[in-house]
Amino acid sequence: MDTEYRSLDALGLLREIEGVGRDARRGGYSRHVFDDAERTLRDWFVERARGLGLGVDTDRNGNIWAWWGEPGPGAVVTGSHLDSVPGGGAHDGPLGVVSALDAVARLKRSGFVPARPLAIVVFAEEEGSRFGIACLGSRLLSGAIDPDRAGTLVDASGRTFAEVASDAGLGSFGRDDEALARIGVFVELHVEQGRGLVDLDAPVAVGSSILEHGRWRIDVRGQGNHAGTTEIADRRDPMLPAAAAVAAARAAATRRTGSRATIGRLEPIPGGTNVIASRVAAWLDVRAGSEADTRAIVADVAAEVADAAAAEGCEATVVEESYSGEVRFDPALRDRLAAALGGVPVLPTGAGHDAGVLAGSVPTAMLFVRNPSGVSHAPEEGADDAAIEAGVAALVRALEELS
Amino acid sequence: MDTEYRSLDALGLLREIEGVGRDARRGGYSRHVFDDAERTLRDWFVERARGLGLGVDTDRNGNIWAWWGEPGPGAVVTGSHLDSVPGGGAHDGPLGVVSALDAVARLKRSGFVPARPLAIVVFAEEEGSRFGIACLGSRLLSGAIDPDRAGTLVDASGRTFAEVASDAGLGSFGRDDEALARIGVFVELHVEQGRGLVDLDAPVAVGSSILEHGRWRIDVRGQGNHAGTTEIADRRDPMLPAAAAVAAARAAATRRTGSRATIGRLEPIPGGTNVIASRVAAWLDVRAGSEADTRAIVADVAAEVADAAAAEGCEATVVEESYSGEVRFDPALRDRLAAALGGVPVLPTGAGHDAGVLAGSVPTAMLFVRNPSGVSHAPEEGADDAAIEAGVAALVRALEELS
Repeated sequence: MDTEYRSLDALGLLREIEGVGRDARRGGYSRHVFDDAERTLRDWFVERARGLGLGVDTDRNGNIWAWWGEPGPGAVVTGSHLDSVPGGGAHDGPLGVVSALDAVARLKRSGFVPARPLAIVVFAEEEGSRFGIACLGSRLLSGAIDPDRAGTLVDASGRTFAEVASDAGLGSFGRDDEALARIGVFVELHVEQGRGLVDLDAPVAVGSSILEHGRWRIDVRGQGNHAGTTEIADRRDPMLPAAAAVAAARAAATRRTGSRATIGRLEPIPGGTNVIASRVAAWLDVRAGSEADTRAIVADVAAEVADAAAAEGCEATVVEESYSGEVRFDPALRDRLAAALGGVPVLPTGAGHDAGVLAGSVPTAMLFVRNPSGVSHAPEEGADDAAIEAGVAALVRALEELS
Repeated sequence: MDTEYRSLDALGLLREIEGVGRDARRGGYSRHVFDDAERTLRDWFVERARGLGLGVDTDRNGNIWAWWGEPGPGAVVTGSHLDSVPGGGAHDGPLGVVSALDAVARLKRSGFVPARPLAIVVFAEEEGSRFGIACLGSRLLSGAIDPDRAGTLVDASGRTFAEVASDAGLGSFGRDDEALARIGVFVELHVEQGRGLVDLDAPVAVGSSILEHGRWRIDVRGQGNHAGTTEIADRRDPMLPAAAAVAAARAAATRRTGSRATIGRLEPIPGGTNVIASRVAAWLDVRAGSEADTRAIVADVAAEVADAAAAEGCEATVVEESYSGEVRFDPALRDRLAAALGGVPVLPTGAGHDAGVLAGSVPTAMLFVRNPSGVSHAPEEGADDAAIEAGVAALVRALEELS
């Protein structure tokens, strides 16, 4: 075991999967729940976990659990996810999984015997890149989303989550009290998605909170027509109100310090060069620090889209797809971990995580690992070797402390 | 022959293909060159043409020819295309093909013996929906596009035209002097893509000209990043300059009476809800009545995109993909047909056609058929039964006149 895993530290494990799910068009990786790339990573994880002597099973929601010791209540659980945004980086998700494998291998090599069960978890559809709802696996597990609603979510090809889950061998998905009851504490290690640790010149931090966060879908309907024959006066072009939404989101966020509003996904239908679009779908992502500010930003954008739609003879709707309030991680756990790690920094994040979802059900903590670029959800995302080593060491220490 | 084709008039033929290539997501039809739907229509056309006793072959550029009599120089040629824009209507293209089949069937039934060879042609990739260049089949045939450039055009999946053409059994594509020399005159019947005939209360017109037309590709590059963690001040979001392009195109066209500028295709990369895009590609379609006005509109849009890109820390490029000057159809042929058809209206069009490309090489004319909605490149496109019947009768008369 010692020999077998000496080379498979976190960096070696990342190298093993660096060819899986590369996106030639966007750069980086596209690994979406239950697609070929993500299933390859699932199989790879199962093999690596079994190689460590862990017992592996997949729960009814598609989350994979690898157990050191008998599955049981009060377990110390760590892990993250293997899926990515379209064209995402190599670390968002996988770093938490490979660090967990590395940490367990180190603990085993050191002769450590955990006093409580210990598990590594890989959550399904953390990014929501396929079915639109982030953290779908942990939301289903914890009952944070109605399984009937989850079942009707559709991917870009029109397949429902229920169909895809059935093909993946899942039975009935939804709240899993048994799986939830096994978790005594959850610690997720994740690459930092900003420059907090770069600015502090530190490799690792403990998480304090996750900014509140909502997603809205904007639909503008006009009249599709021929781009060459339709005079400007006769047009009802939904691209105009959609473009107004992009500008309005920026203006509304700029008016409120510290808030963020983004339209990163926008789809003209039908999307032909010589065709005036008949409709445009766009997604508005807002995180403003308070629900009131977030909803004020959405209201500003909706008002400007409505005005632009009326001027163009179009119809517009703005519908909430998800909203999550601010998450504050367990303060006692946060302070205990920060102390055990020698007084590392404590940082908030603007990014959502499965740890944020589980924080509503069990004591939860996060460890952030320095990202020199500060960039995430893009190929430029990174983590320096020293920070990855420090992250694994911190996770080892955290698991010792909690087990 | 008479019995077999009595039911397969233009309306009956349109009904035969009404289930092929329906687009459930966009509505209407998506039939793109050499995809399953378009190949189904090709096979269907070959069968129907052979059923009329015509000899069928496909040229080196993927255009299908169905001959009444020996292929030879000086032929009277009619036809159109079977591909569509994404989510297009039922008539743009197919109406010219089914009307040609119906017209030949009627001429045969009437005992007419053409004094010159007569052919029906189906051109490949008229819309440019798969490889980006409209009228690709007629451009290759007539030498209006360099075959080396055509070979490197890529579809949305990254396949080149050279690869797809090879799979479709085409050998070396490019200018085809032999095929071109066979065409004595070309008449294309097409659904009108505006309300000219509705306003005139007439079912059929003869074409006078095609508005000049250009396509430009706008690329804006910024920095992909996480929508939750990246503060507004740190963003380099290419969606902002892209949205400025949409507004600028509208403003620039509005300033120049009679001109049209459209952005109907816009693609954020990677296109994730929780991701600031790293780049955006958008296509600008301009038709302003003169090359000077068209280029002035493009310059206005490019200047506004450059300003918006500079303000956002992005880089923008605007590259011409194609430009076609105004086409005036052969005046003598136009007047001869208008007279033979009893003095029908003569109308210009803003839409490009294979007839416009061939007009540079051979005497060419067009017949337009009334479209009650005035809408085209959208599911609402239509042609009333009376206008379709009048169109076929006009095409019969035109072929008699010219053969």
